[in-house]
Amino acid sequence: MSKLPSLAVVGATGAVGTVMLDILSKRPNVYGEIRLIASARSAGKKLTCRGEELTVVALSPEAFDGIDIAMFDVPDEISAEWAPIAAERGAVVVDNSGAFRMDPEVPLVVPEVNPKMAKKRPKGIISNPNCTTLSMIVAMGALNKEFKLKELVVASYQAASGAGQSGIDTLRAQISAVAGTNAGDVSNDSKAFIKDNGPFPAPLALNVVPWAGSLKEAGYSSEELKVRNESRKILGMPDLKVSATCVRVPVLTTHSLAVHAIFKKKVGRKAAQKILANADGVKLVDDPENYQFPTPAQVVGTDPTWVGRVRASLDDNHALDLFLCGDNLRKGAALNTAQIAELVAKEFN
Amino acid sequence: MSKLPSLAVVGATGAVGTVMLDILSKRPNVYGEIRLIASARSAGKKLTCRGEELTVVALSPEAFDGIDIAMFDVPDEISAEWAPIAAERGAVVVDNSGAFRMDPEVPLVVPEVNPKMAKKRPKGIISNPNCTTLSMIVAMGALNKEFKLKELVVASYQAASGAGQSGIDTLRAQISAVAGTNAGDVSNDSKAFIKDNGPFPAPLALNVVPWAGSLKEAGYSSEELKVRNESRKILGMPDLKVSATCVRVPVLTTHSLAVHAIFKKKVGRKAAQKILANADGVKLVDDPENYQFPTPAQVVGTDPTWVGRVRASLDDNHALDLFLCGDNLRKGAALNTAQIAELVAKEFN
Repeated sequence: MSKLPSLAVVGATGAVGTVMLDILSKRPNVYGEIRLIASARSAGKKLTCRGEELTVVALSPEAFDGIDIAMFDVPDEISAEWAPIAAERGAVVVDNSGAFRMDPEVPLVVPEVNPKMAKKRPKGIISNPNCTTLSMIVAMGALNKEFKLKELVVASYQAASGAGQSGIDTLRAQISAVAGTNAGDVSNDSKAFIKDNGPFPAPLALNVVPWAGSLKEAGYSSEELKVRNESRKILGMPDLKVSATCVRVPVLTTHSLAVHAIFKKKVGRKAAQKILANADGVKLVDDPENYQFPTPAQVVGTDPTWVGRVRASLDDNHALDLFLCGDNLRKGAALNTAQIAELVAKEFN
Repeated sequence: MSKLPSLAVVGATGAVGTVMLDILSKRPNVYGEIRLIASARSAGKKLTCRGEELTVVALSPEAFDGIDIAMFDVPDEISAEWAPIAAERGAVVVDNSGAFRMDPEVPLVVPEVNPKMAKKRPKGIISNPNCTTLSMIVAMGALNKEFKLKELVVASYQAASGAGQSGIDTLRAQISAVAGTNAGDVSNDSKAFIKDNGPFPAPLALNVVPWAGSLKEAGYSSEELKVRNESRKILGMPDLKVSATCVRVPVLTTHSLAVHAIFKKKVGRKAAQKILANADGVKLVDDPENYQFPTPAQVVGTDPTWVGRVRASLDDNHALDLFLCGDNLRKGAALNTAQIAELVAKEFN
């Protein structure tokens, strides 16, 4: 019998890392040793995974000795430095940062959409897409197979946890600050009650903020360009037209997206619903007559990409309008990373 | 000197009516008598307008005697019954309900966009558009004049007050219920804390709900079709392609919209910004480098349509992406009604 591959979780103590340990405990057990790695500050901490108590070790080149697969859930600059070190020591790296996503020698993988790309990794590194792209791409990939995508127009409703634990803490504090007040009224806007915007450029409670990430070319935010560039790379369609407007909303976890998708082939509502109902990793909830559609409160903590409000455009028989929700900490981060690592683990059979 | 026209405010005690009395008190005084009309239940109530205390009278055919202009801010079915009665008695009706908006004999007027239509009113009735359409149409009208619109793809971020006072009360109660709890966490979603969804089909606090209005053809909501049909009528473009997805967000007042607009002429970011900066009724706030863009918390209580995040599409030199905010109780309802009434009042000079 072949030896089970060993796995390192780098960034085990972070927001995504915490979800990762939960996911690893619940999914099929395909690993031998699991080693938890974090900053020196967290070394020695004890965490539970697969029912075993594990002691966190500090990030160092030697920490990767004997590791076959290393998942990275750390900031871009830490990944940029340490992923190549882990790869050089023989580990296949699955990286959830933005450091390598657009590197032509690093595949960007969504197992339901482009699993074969995981094997094409000259640097020994595989990237995991951004959470906003991941909240729609499984469903769009399924529709693309049938109808051939031409253009995507995306408006996002992004959760606070996309900005990390400080995003969650900030929104919780702001909700408490405005509760029971007249914040949001004409003459008493939320600024009177909200003193700390945390990682956001404006108050988020009782508000929406049309900004995520940093300023890039032509007035677009980094988040908006990620949706465009990553969708193109994952789908293998470098000329796909993509326009995105990314907006933060006062939701803790689970991103939502309104998508207007234009296809090369004619599309119909029922045909699209059928494809989505049968697609791997997609849950169709689309019965507006009974007010059944996905909302973040319903989706949080679950694995699939939820899709509802499927409509054939009234003015373009090649276009669909849809509303999608995905847990940005699960499929949007930890789950997809775990799924990629499982693809790699199969190579050890 | 010509006599100033008399004005009736029907529905003076409602959410929009209350804003209307404030607006009438602050705008140029172009009316003689102002008469407040409401249901029999509210008759006798005293309200202040233009610094005068006025006594509300009950809705009856005689209540319109001597009235030159009658604004209606009441439910569709009340308007459908009573607007023709007021018109028959000689009043020009400005109606804020949905009862007559798509009637080919009733103009749908936005004074900054199609003021001349206000005179073409064979039934003596002028309609005021839906609040979501109004939150973008002034800006889109200005861009249309220069670049000629071909298509609009709209995703809305609609405030609770679009569902009336019960929407406001419901969201406030839900915010208080979830404050300081672990609602929104994976294992403790908001349903455990929110018992009353009020006028919404799902909890709104810490959530977004992709539904507004009632179910219409092909899975679209009434609100989504209003954006399409009213935009076409106001712009005088019956073949304009419009796709809308309408989503309720946990904001009290002020609707926001992400708009992808495709034009017949080539468009550029700077040219579009210049037009918007100079357009009547539009306020451009577009400096992402300094995190300056409109948010509902900043816009609530103000009159203009605020526009920011203006971007020329990277993949289509005929397309712009924008983010717009408008106070749905002011420009989205009472203010536009008041502006239409002022157009009519000028005819009495």
